[in-house]
Amino acid sequence: MTRVVSLNPATNTERALEIDETSPQDVAVLCARASSIAAQYGAWPLSRRAEMLRTMAAELEADAASLVEVAMEETSLPRARLEGELRRTAYQLRFFADVVVEGSFLQASIDHATNSPMGPLADLRRMKTPLGPVAVFGSSNFPFAFSVPGGDTVSALAAGCPVVIKAHPAHPATSQATFDALERGAKIAGAPEGVLGLVFGFDSGVALVDDPSIRAVGFTGSGPVGKALWARANARPTPIPFFGELGAANPLVVTAAAAAERAETIGAGVAGSMTLGVGQFCTKPGIVLVPNGEHGDALVEALVGALRELHEMTMLAPGIARHFRDGATSIAESAGTRRLVGGDAEVGSQARAQLFEVSAITFVEPSSRPLREECFGPLAVVVRYDDNEQIRQALDIIDPSLTFSVFAAADDPDATWLIALGASKAGRVTFNEYPTGVGVSWSMQHGGPWPSTTSPATTSVGASGIERWLRPITFQGIPMDLLPEALKDDNPLGIPQRIDGNYPG
Amino acid sequence: MTRVVSLNPATNTERALEIDETSPQDVAVLCARASSIAAQYGAWPLSRRAEMLRTMAAELEADAASLVEVAMEETSLPRARLEGELRRTAYQLRFFADVVVEGSFLQASIDHATNSPMGPLADLRRMKTPLGPVAVFGSSNFPFAFSVPGGDTVSALAAGCPVVIKAHPAHPATSQATFDALERGAKIAGAPEGVLGLVFGFDSGVALVDDPSIRAVGFTGSGPVGKALWARANARPTPIPFFGELGAANPLVVTAAAAAERAETIGAGVAGSMTLGVGQFCTKPGIVLVPNGEHGDALVEALVGALRELHEMTMLAPGIARHFRDGATSIAESAGTRRLVGGDAEVGSQARAQLFEVSAITFVEPSSRPLREECFGPLAVVVRYDDNEQIRQALDIIDPSLTFSVFAAADDPDATWLIALGASKAGRVTFNEYPTGVGVSWSMQHGGPWPSTTSPATTSVGASGIERWLRPITFQGIPMDLLPEALKDDNPLGIPQRIDGNYPG
Repeated sequence: MTRVVSLNPATNTERALEIDETSPQDVAVLCARASSIAAQYGAWPLSRRAEMLRTMAAELEADAASLVEVAMEETSLPRARLEGELRRTAYQLRFFADVVVEGSFLQASIDHATNSPMGPLADLRRMKTPLGPVAVFGSSNFPFAFSVPGGDTVSALAAGCPVVIKAHPAHPATSQATFDALERGAKIAGAPEGVLGLVFGFDSGVALVDDPSIRAVGFTGSGPVGKALWARANARPTPIPFFGELGAANPLVVTAAAAAERAETIGAGVAGSMTLGVGQFCTKPGIVLVPNGEHGDALVEALVGALRELHEMTMLAPGIARHFRDGATSIAESAGTRRLVGGDAEVGSQARAQLFEVSAITFVEPSSRPLREECFGPLAVVVRYDDNEQIRQALDIIDPSLTFSVFAAADDPDATWLIALGASKAGRVTFNEYPTGVGVSWSMQHGGPWPSTTSPATTSVGASGIERWLRPITFQGIPMDLLPEALKDDNPLGIPQRIDGNYPG
Repeated sequence: MTRVVSLNPATNTERALEIDETSPQDVAVLCARASSIAAQYGAWPLSRRAEMLRTMAAELEADAASLVEVAMEETSLPRARLEGELRRTAYQLRFFADVVVEGSFLQASIDHATNSPMGPLADLRRMKTPLGPVAVFGSSNFPFAFSVPGGDTVSALAAGCPVVIKAHPAHPATSQATFDALERGAKIAGAPEGVLGLVFGFDSGVALVDDPSIRAVGFTGSGPVGKALWARANARPTPIPFFGELGAANPLVVTAAAAAERAETIGAGVAGSMTLGVGQFCTKPGIVLVPNGEHGDALVEALVGALRELHEMTMLAPGIARHFRDGATSIAESAGTRRLVGGDAEVGSQARAQLFEVSAITFVEPSSRPLREECFGPLAVVVRYDDNEQIRQALDIIDPSLTFSVFAAADDPDATWLIALGASKAGRVTFNEYPTGVGVSWSMQHGGPWPSTTSPATTSVGASGIERWLRPITFQGIPMDLLPEALKDDNPLGIPQRIDGNYPG
């Protein structure tokens, strides 16, 4: 047995936990257990499911102090950030409890038998039902909000699916501690054993994707790992949906008018957004398009000045810092690139903010590929342009992304076309707002087109995240007393029902 | 150039059409043209899109007489069926016009800026937008409703996507004639050239799936071809969703009580359903579970009697008939199988109804695999069971399916568990109703779990079919005058908007 090791990236010290990496046999046992209770849990009344999520939120909050301590040790993220993230995670549990009770996620639709121009139509009733056991891969960069108790787990539980979670190796102790809180919540709510499972170790993740009981996978992480697991999910005898939130370079365009209006403010703002959380957000703006000329120069100067004031920062893990260093080196060595801030100061998990500058003409050269790829960490590439045509060419060559940000002035002639272009290439378009900071709400969209996401029609953040774990079924000609509650004429759940094509009232 | 050939399966005579198979170069041109106008067409007002669909319906109806003639010649389907199918196709166009105008498919959601327990939340507005050019593969068995003017084409146009259609080789002249009607409709509506395209030939289909401009594929056809194209769509540099409606054995269970109550009625009904359209429906009931004993015997006798009264039938194409013959032979040669109706009478495209019987014990043997697979055509396998345990074992070993049918008596003790089991293994559960005959409506679900469908969370029939061609985008902090109409506070489109989590009114 291999012991699971917890590493403190600030001190580079390891400690072995009282946890073994999960064997393939144990993964199979957990998945079979989840499968055995999937129908039972999936049939729980919505109110009971919601109650369990609320109880889990309370249990997380009860452990808040110790959870934040252990997460600080494992991630080096500051206390305030982790406290905020835990609040967000508890909020997310309660938000999904509300989503469950509201019930529109079931998309209940009733068509009474009728005559149509096609001939007679039977009584048809359609709703969404849970897929069954779901595997969730915790992320490195959100030890709470996108890990064990995070959005994937919560939305899957909300959908009525048991969840088996793969802990991220960057914070195993945090994973176990948050899992314990969720398990207490499940127990208090009377959930069957098997509604939650937790596995550790690289091989256990692969075994999860392969397990025949698993019906879908939620993943937040790097592009290469995500794409490999996506291919594996598709190669199963029975392929399953793999919802991978990978990452992106996330362009941010400053129009000429915006630079003329408020160069310093935007420069300082970009510095804050690209270094928030040590730049370890998949929504970090990585490519910043700035006009040539004095206003653009002033913006870059403000950005450089703000970055130079920052101290060295500790990244989540030495492997992540090494990868960051490699990415920065590739960019630095790319022809025609100037380094404005940074240098080779990183050792261990330490990193310095890095800023590069390149002309739009150089940026679109084939050899400039490293500049156009995501570099996870506090790094951005400033692309200086002469005109709109250069903006277009630069944006055209960047892969689609999670976010696309436009900074414009009032009545800016470039706002309209940039917003439209952003909408064609990203999952979220922000206007005079930075893309970092992803709120949990009804209208949030996180995923963008491939390769930023493997399933661009879905989201891992916000109410619509629940849609990933459901599939529709139509019941035809079923007597009223044998129908699911959600599809009965007297609507005992009080949920939105589309009736003969319309929502009543 | 290879000429496209139209074959009359009844007479086995060929005629060369004035159409060449589409070259890869021409496929690329059509896709590029679709791509060049995708943004323009996607930005059309909903009302204009709807008007175009209604015009297309009228143009199809204007050609009804000649369309039915050419389809009869190419498919050997009877006049009444084809007239009905054309009516259904025109209805479907008008239905989707209504779906477009109703606007809930956009899932418009507005969250005004607020303070949450997580901290301040920005103004967030989410809606669905069209993916871009879509490829549609026409089916063999519905020359109208699932081919050129069929549900995939119509739902994609409704979503705001240009469509390039691959004509099915079993009815090329029908494909061209229906395409001409659609094109006239598009022209009258002022649609840009490129909103519709049509290609012929096997290679052109492969080129479509590969083309970088194509953003999604709709496919109705056989499992092997569908899975191969699905894999190809996933192997692209930028994978795209492949919505494949394949097929299934579609079990139909007759409970002991139902057999006791109305053996003859059900026997005759099954005969009608399994031979409707010469059994060439993907929803054909292919496996019929019948109790042992006198009531079951009476049911089988009625089924056999009804089938024996049928004449030879002409299938859609010689290749389909050959495949049907091969399937029947595999079943006949399977150990422990008795042929009740049929024989080797098929020549050319001719087929006879075939019925086989097997015990539930034999049915679950590994060697009985051919009995459990779809055989496209007028064939069913009757599985005789002793008790519920044998029903369970038989159903357990059958792949998930498009449909699952339960025939029960009033207050039947077996109704509940059979409906639940069906819901776990199919996309549509019918109760005392045959699965053939798929109405176009808000509550219809066509797709079932893999391998009956490649994307079980979607449907190719009914209003929800439109969801396949859209992806969500969130707009953050965008000024009111720059927002899409669907997301404006004053709701100029009058569509359902979720506002701060609720639907007003």
